[in-house]
Amino acid sequence: ALVAVESEDDELPGEKVWGGGGKVIFMVSDGTGWTAEHSVSAALGQFEHCLVDRGCPVNTHLFSGIEDLDHLMEIIRQAAMERALLLYTLADPSMADAAKKACKLWGVPFSDILGPITEAIATHLGVAPSGIPRSVSARNMPLSEEYFRRIEAIDFTIKQDDGAQPQNLSRAHIVLLGVSRTGKTPLSIYLAQKGYKVANVPLVLGAQPPKTLFEINQEKIYALTINPVVLQTVRKTRAKSLGFSSEMERNYSDRDHVREELEFAKVTGKAIEETAAVILRTVHDRKHKHTMPRISRRY
Amino acid sequence: ALVAVESEDDELPGEKVWGGGGKVIFMVSDGTGWTAEHSVSAALGQFEHCLVDRGCPVNTHLFSGIEDLDHLMEIIRQAAMERALLLYTLADPSMADAAKKACKLWGVPFSDILGPITEAIATHLGVAPSGIPRSVSARNMPLSEEYFRRIEAIDFTIKQDDGAQPQNLSRAHIVLLGVSRTGKTPLSIYLAQKGYKVANVPLVLGAQPPKTLFEINQEKIYALTINPVVLQTVRKTRAKSLGFSSEMERNYSDRDHVREELEFAKVTGKAIEETAAVILRTVHDRKHKHTMPRISRRY
Ligand SMILES: Nc1ncnc2c1ncn2[C@@H]1O[C@H](COP(=O)(O)O)[C@@H](O)[C@H]1O
Ligand SMILES: Nc1ncnc2c1ncn2[C@@H]1O[C@H](COP(=O)(O)O)[C@@H](O)[C@H]1O
Ligand SMILES: [Mg+2]
Ligand SMILES: [Mg+2]
Repeated sequence: ALVAVESEDDELPGEKVWGGGGKVIFMVSDGTGWTAEHSVSAALGQFEHCLVDRGCPVNTHLFSGIEDLDHLMEIIRQAAMERALLLYTLADPSMADAAKKACKLWGVPFSDILGPITEAIATHLGVAPSGIPRSVSARNMPLSEEYFRRIEAIDFTIKQDDGAQPQNLSRAHIVLLGVSRTGKTPLSIYLAQKGYKVANVPLVLGAQPPKTLFEINQEKIYALTINPVVLQTVRKTRAKSLGFSSEMERNYSDRDHVREELEFAKVTGKAIEETAAVILRTVHDRKHKHTMPRISRRY
Repeated sequence: ALVAVESEDDELPGEKVWGGGGKVIFMVSDGTGWTAEHSVSAALGQFEHCLVDRGCPVNTHLFSGIEDLDHLMEIIRQAAMERALLLYTLADPSMADAAKKACKLWGVPFSDILGPITEAIATHLGVAPSGIPRSVSARNMPLSEEYFRRIEAIDFTIKQDDGAQPQNLSRAHIVLLGVSRTGKTPLSIYLAQKGYKVANVPLVLGAQPPKTLFEINQEKIYALTINPVVLQTVRKTRAKSLGFSSEMERNYSDRDHVREELEFAKVTGKAIEETAAVILRTVHDRKHKHTMPRISRRY
């Protein structure tokens, strides 16, 4: 059994159902590659009618930290061999140019992910882009105020997980309330990554929430709501992975039990990023009261 | 003092030095807007020689969940009034088209963030994009395996923070080792968001690491290393925010103390995303041994 668990755990994220076949996309960045990955993943959302579950898989390969020409050329040659589409983010114009020319020469379809946006911004600001990749520019930058804010937010959020330290609720930007398995923890963590201090407080049938919850600014509080049928499914999956006994599982995921608990909260269900978007829009809107809700930043 | 703390905490991320002036960028998405935010933030990295610290600030405003035409037109009219650049991600071709036409009509400079990538992918796959925004398409989708993986990874990672539960080290995809303030926790959390189970183990001068560390697959272990001078600065800032006494602060951030502790580990310093990129490249490379290190995913 130990061996089975080990090998299941060894499967890395995104590796599902490896095997032959599928169209290939190469992503190349002189930085981390996360921008390329994020953009491609969103764009692939437009092809959900035709991905792995529909028998038309797409295999993406991310090459990050590509800062020299030889390496870049080697990747593009490989892309040609695998008949891949090449999507890239290269800050140095001579690298971007070389990529373009090599793709044309070797018949590799390609698109520049950030080039058009960077150009639009350059024109708008009336300033030329530096052409310096993030690794090089970061080397000379001190750690920013933003960096420390984010670390503080993550520290705070972890310490406040699952109703811990209710005396600190007033220091949170956002307080999330919800019954078990409404996704309070992952949502808290997602928001913390963006620099928000989040506290999450569980609602438990028959237990009083902490007193401080009623003393803080009530506008900071967000109740997470979920459809009871969905919650039941989530809890069943969860109960299995936690190795609950069937007795415990029944109690945890029983429909009536779920409904009863839900009398404290209301009802719906969404992806972490989507819920985060809704909450942050409201957070900023409550503070700034624009005619159109927006999240503003200054760079 | 309480009031001062409260109002400092109330400042939301990205709000630094609000005040007049600066060029304006509007971002519009029919989804969460995170793709737009990520791309624009990376692109703005190319203008670091000319942002808020250099007296040439850029104010971005993110409008997410924009699914109807009236709302879209209202935003573009506002963009015209604020002389903003408009960057958008709109899955529905009629919305994208309307945005383009309105921008031309009202003289708003614009660029479509995902349109060109989506087109390149469509041509490559030989399949037309659905044109359905994420909110609509998500409504009909069951929660994915990926969703549960990610939640499990976050749960696991939080529970293993700061050397807790060393008996579970073998279940981690990645084990991070490092002295205090090398950023183990934020890095662990960043990797967990991407679906990796991470355990972090502190290295403390004079204390033995847990025995299990030597029993697990040693390829999973990554030692975080940092320049002692940088570490000293980080710890000074940290000591202040923790309200350490000057005695404690001296011990924690003293250069010699820092050096001594570092005899356990090696030396460097980077942004969370960059370290994550380096580690994940190695994780995937160790498993798959490609000629060129890459992170592969199947969609
Ligand atoms: N802070 C930054 N300074 C300069 N360039 C950056 C910065 N952040 C991202 N970039 C560039 O934006 C593109 C995408 O970055 P990444 O998401 O790290 O792959 C790469 O070409 C990076 O070099
Ligand atoms: N899973 C998905 N299905 C369909 N479209 C998506 C998906 N994820 C992102 N998109 C689209 O990609 C663009 C960027 O998404 P977002 O980052 O949520 O603003 C929007 O136009 C979304 O509608
Ligand atoms: Mg990238
Ligand atoms: Mg977007």
